[in-house]
Amino acid sequence: MSIDDAPSQPIETKIDVLIIGAGPAGVMAADMFARYTAQGLTCRIIDKRSAKLDNGQADGLNCRTLEIFESLGFVESIEKEGSRMSEINFWNPCPETGRLVRTGKIPDTIPGLSRFQQTILHQGRIEAHLIADAAKHSNGAIIPERGVLPEALEIDESLLSDPSAYPIKVTLRHLSEEESNPDGLTQNGATRSGLFRSSLVSAEEEEKLYKKKEQAVKREIVSAKYVIGCDGAHSWTRRTLGIKMIGEQTSELRLGSTRRCPHHQLPDIRARCAIHSANAGSVMVIPQERDLVRLYIQLPVQVKPGEYLDRSKVTPESILATARAILHPYTLDTELIEWFTGYHIGQRLTESFTPNNRVFLAGDACHTHSPKAGQGMNTSMQDTFNLAWKIGHVVTGLAKPELLETYSLERQVVAKTLIDFDTKFSKLFSGKPASKDDLDEGVSLSEFKDVFATGNLFAAGMSISYAGNLIVARPDGTSSIKSRPELASKLAVGERFFSAQVVNVASATPDQLTTRMLTNGAFRILVFAGNVAEEKAMKKLEKLAEYLDGEESVVSKYTPKGRSRSSVIDVITIHSSDRLALELYDFPQPSIFPSNDPHTAYKKVYVDAPSYHRGDGKAYEAYGISKEEGAIVVVRPDQYVALITSLDDTATLDAYFSQFLVPAAQGSPAKDIRLLSPPDWSKVEKVELSHSFAVKEREPAEENAAVV
Amino acid sequence: MSIDDAPSQPIETKIDVLIIGAGPAGVMAADMFARYTAQGLTCRIIDKRSAKLDNGQADGLNCRTLEIFESLGFVESIEKEGSRMSEINFWNPCPETGRLVRTGKIPDTIPGLSRFQQTILHQGRIEAHLIADAAKHSNGAIIPERGVLPEALEIDESLLSDPSAYPIKVTLRHLSEEESNPDGLTQNGATRSGLFRSSLVSAEEEEKLYKKKEQAVKREIVSAKYVIGCDGAHSWTRRTLGIKMIGEQTSELRLGSTRRCPHHQLPDIRARCAIHSANAGSVMVIPQERDLVRLYIQLPVQVKPGEYLDRSKVTPESILATARAILHPYTLDTELIEWFTGYHIGQRLTESFTPNNRVFLAGDACHTHSPKAGQGMNTSMQDTFNLAWKIGHVVTGLAKPELLETYSLERQVVAKTLIDFDTKFSKLFSGKPASKDDLDEGVSLSEFKDVFATGNLFAAGMSISYAGNLIVARPDGTSSIKSRPELASKLAVGERFFSAQVVNVASATPDQLTTRMLTNGAFRILVFAGNVAEEKAMKKLEKLAEYLDGEESVVSKYTPKGRSRSSVIDVITIHSSDRLALELYDFPQPSIFPSNDPHTAYKKVYVDAPSYHRGDGKAYEAYGISKEEGAIVVVRPDQYVALITSLDDTATLDAYFSQFLVPAAQGSPAKDIRLLSPPDWSKVEKVELSHSFAVKEREPAEENAAVV
Repeated sequence: MSIDDAPSQPIETKIDVLIIGAGPAGVMAADMFARYTAQGLTCRIIDKRSAKLDNGQADGLNCRTLEIFESLGFVESIEKEGSRMSEINFWNPCPETGRLVRTGKIPDTIPGLSRFQQTILHQGRIEAHLIADAAKHSNGAIIPERGVLPEALEIDESLLSDPSAYPIKVTLRHLSEEESNPDGLTQNGATRSGLFRSSLVSAEEEEKLYKKKEQAVKREIVSAKYVIGCDGAHSWTRRTLGIKMIGEQTSELRLGSTRRCPHHQLPDIRARCAIHSANAGSVMVIPQERDLVRLYIQLPVQVKPGEYLDRSKVTPESILATARAILHPYTLDTELIEWFTGYHIGQRLTESFTPNNRVFLAGDACHTHSPKAGQGMNTSMQDTFNLAWKIGHVVTGLAKPELLETYSLERQVVAKTLIDFDTKFSKLFSGKPASKDDLDEGVSLSEFKDVFATGNLFAAGMSISYAGNLIVARPDGTSSIKSRPELASKLAVGERFFSAQVVNVASATPDQLTTRMLTNGAFRILVFAGNVAEEKAMKKLEKLAEYLDGEESVVSKYTPKGRSRSSVIDVITIHSSDRLALELYDFPQPSIFPSNDPHTAYKKVYVDAPSYHRGDGKAYEAYGISKEEGAIVVVRPDQYVALITSLDDTATLDAYFSQFLVPAAQGSPAKDIRLLSPPDWSKVEKVELSHSFAVKEREPAEENAAVV
Repeated sequence: MSIDDAPSQPIETKIDVLIIGAGPAGVMAADMFARYTAQGLTCRIIDKRSAKLDNGQADGLNCRTLEIFESLGFVESIEKEGSRMSEINFWNPCPETGRLVRTGKIPDTIPGLSRFQQTILHQGRIEAHLIADAAKHSNGAIIPERGVLPEALEIDESLLSDPSAYPIKVTLRHLSEEESNPDGLTQNGATRSGLFRSSLVSAEEEEKLYKKKEQAVKREIVSAKYVIGCDGAHSWTRRTLGIKMIGEQTSELRLGSTRRCPHHQLPDIRARCAIHSANAGSVMVIPQERDLVRLYIQLPVQVKPGEYLDRSKVTPESILATARAILHPYTLDTELIEWFTGYHIGQRLTESFTPNNRVFLAGDACHTHSPKAGQGMNTSMQDTFNLAWKIGHVVTGLAKPELLETYSLERQVVAKTLIDFDTKFSKLFSGKPASKDDLDEGVSLSEFKDVFATGNLFAAGMSISYAGNLIVARPDGTSSIKSRPELASKLAVGERFFSAQVVNVASATPDQLTTRMLTNGAFRILVFAGNVAEEKAMKKLEKLAEYLDGEESVVSKYTPKGRSRSSVIDVITIHSSDRLALELYDFPQPSIFPSNDPHTAYKKVYVDAPSYHRGDGKAYEAYGISKEEGAIVVVRPDQYVALITSLDDTATLDAYFSQFLVPAAQGSPAKDIRLLSPPDWSKVEKVELSHSFAVKEREPAEENAAVV
């Protein structure tokens, strides 16, 4: 029955996951869940707005987000389309002359931190990429449903402990086109206003926007196992759950606008700039895609908590005039302002990201901060990148519900750290530069630059280090399973696994190891087997293979029958012998070299060796792994290092995975797999050999006759 | 009037260019013409087949083609989707034991030749990328029209010398779905046959396939200025023009098939392999995308000229049986053969690629060769990449029709060289390996490997060097304008311009220089200005700028009024001083730094310097250019080096471009362009400075009031 039939009783459907809100956090979750639809997971994603974003809002992608996009398979498109940033320029009034002068330059991303550098591309395009990827991986099953507003949410507490139950009932209201794209929110000539989405609008005002009309209302009821509220700073989900945001809404006002900047004389308009004027405010310049430039303007305006600035005063003209005052005597003209907005800044955080591990909050719904550090969209997407695979695992029966507890544990700390950083950073940015007479009150320029530089590490998304928990086997006593970090001394348990180049043994083609570890829900066991050309090392690998191929191994135990043995725990071997010292068939089958599986066989064994065309990756060196001892590194589906141990320590592998995985009803042991081995030359006819220097040809069967 | 109205008189339309055939050559031409549609060029592309290719046919992309795809903007997608090749493995019978053994390995692409390595992706996907790009750049105007068959072509000789005339009349027949997708050509279970497209079908047989039905026929007549026949080895265009193919159709038969290869024991199935059996034929293994493997099988079968092998004998089963005989005792099993075909090999070439510089032939229509060297699709696309910009320039009034003569001059030599190479290469490949007793007749393995290795340079598309002509100012006396090659000693006039990394001065972002030189029809003047921090070098650059900004410069003379001054001749400066030694505003405006143009201003000045994140490109060193003397390098729209001269030699620039460009009716002089300069600090109020360490703010006008 279609919703258009408008029945008197709302229709009711069941779904595994309902995502409320199709912003960056929501569509990232959708894209992750898309990868579980082949295993039967069902998911819907709704958004009250009918119009997709076509400019404005967030635009900064940090290194970690780009790494995630790599793992999702489309980072090349993002890098191509976006504006890659390299340098930050600092402009300040010269204490001697008062002139606005460039006082310093630093790299925008700390060199060596990641293979990717911070890139600017506006939120609408990011969402479009994630939506397209979700549709692709779900065969069109997961596509945002727009113009759908949640109206009520009920939780049946009695069902919470039953993983197969649908304890959450959400009433959805289908909005008309007019309601879902309220008046005044559409474009104003060529310049689009983002004010209606900004924090200058209160939750109540925003709500009214979408419920203007009295008319026949179409409703439906969705029963869900899990709900994720990705519905922004005014989160309806959060308010409905009665979860409070803690923290101050500060009294600052900032303006963002996006424009083409032809007529100005600041030479750094295509680099990120932090410009402090003496007394007219400050501006951050962000060079965007399509030759656009965004200016973040900080005004010395005070707004009391609960008050909202008169939005009518925020116009493209007033923003331009303000920017000109800050940049004076440098001029600023533009043919086009594509978009503008204004907003208050607050650093606020919810007590919890979930009341019950059934309904979750993610992104701005549970933490807000300033956009200056460029962390809002990144942290939001990283929230659901952390959460969605956990829900996916539980819904498809691979993992225990306890896995879900790690979401709030891990991400709330990240949000708290971010908010602390942002508070400090924002204060520095909004402070007036210290003048000669005024050193106490002002912000010293060197302090500003220092915070900016150290903040870079944080802002790149690289400082995240999850504490020990069910899925993070830290060596520091915070988890029951302990890693042996000395075996891979440059990797850190709880931090993201970084990439190094390795060479595929089957094809001799070099690639970054992470391009082999695309996000598909699998844990990876990276077997750094060392110098397997030596018998001792090969024996160790063979012993590990014997375990892996046995019925009690983590691969056999947790892989459901009928699924690929790489689908839950994917074993990848990287050896360090000479590439030509061994043939692929010298490696143990099938766990190390699964000759039976055409889709994985040639993507299992790699070597840390020089390549023909791309130099030498020196992966063992990069990870701090000894070529004599080797190491096992377990990487989570979201690329965080979970466990480091030795090749013979299969007991720790057993213990680690048993904490959160569910043994498959009928596991997938290796014993019935057809194996191949090279020809047995002793059985090839000798007579023929001496006659024609060739082995005897097989007699083709009549129906399989060769063309000759 | 729509064609569906089926009038008794065919409708007649006029068009600048008609492309016959939507294979690789045709869609490449379409994609190039798409870039001229904004200047009014009209183009249609037709193909008799209604079904797009979904597998099979050609699949090898050489380095040069990948560079072209980079210049078209989508090489990342191709590299991602395709199978990047690294190594070639040679397998031969051991003379001692007769066993099939690996006798050698060489890199598949000579290291250092290009930033790209040979990549395998089947023709259908390549065509899809080019079609999508053509639609994008033409705003949907150029999309292949399928099921359209050319029936007659008439040339009005009296109109040939009038560039504005439409001397060619082509009658088009619109086929029904049934006709354009003939019976038996569709898929046979899961395995698709490519036989109907192969050289096992004669031109007459093929023609019949598309004209089976008697029914009401819909026709139209197209009058065109130019026609390109990209209609393959059986080219209707070529036959209609009465142009003969010269050369032998050899008597070999080869089979191609594409399959997943799970069960075999050859360890090199994911690398390119050349496998010679002692007496069962030879096979070349090509690892494709999606874990597919293609086998090219060479059979010792003789077919007389004019005869065609019985196609019914070519079946997936017979191919598999043959492959097994060659590979024995290595086994070969497969779950799926996606596609197969069989073909004769001939090396043939037309006398001319055009009878009149109005109708042109390109690709297989004018040269055929074996697919073993992987050159068919590459050379075909490179043909029209060479031709289309020339037609585009003439049609849009930028260039004289004489420019078109360079197409046949340049490409026929390439085809001839290719055919000579292919003849040698094919013979080697089909020869039996030399055995101990039989050294005279057989092919020595080391000879085979040597030809393979040297052939690699050729096969990469890198050995093409156009002789001197109207647009190639070689220093060797073959052109009237002479280059000074010593100024850029590692570049070669007539060869393709290779890339080096440079750093953008405005953003500090490093990039390959070729990513700044995307294909848009513009010639590039690369100004290697040297150490411009020194006065002498800056004076030289300023003198050049004075010329460029003058009314008589090549930029002013040939750029039509109203178009960007970078659109016809795009000046890009690469200096070699310290990046921080100069500000952007230190460079001459507008020719070197066009501060007035927001779309080009920050993409004009680069520096050969270290970058934060991607090392040091050392471009001057790579090109062999002195930092003291500098050089001007003119690069053609298709990336070939056209001219090398000194910074002060503007006379040669004048002479070079005057050979083939048409002065614009009203050129686009620089004198009325608004220029910007940094603030004049002497005019900033001193009083304010001393008071607040800031310059005085401008009073915002009432209607432009700042928010403060």
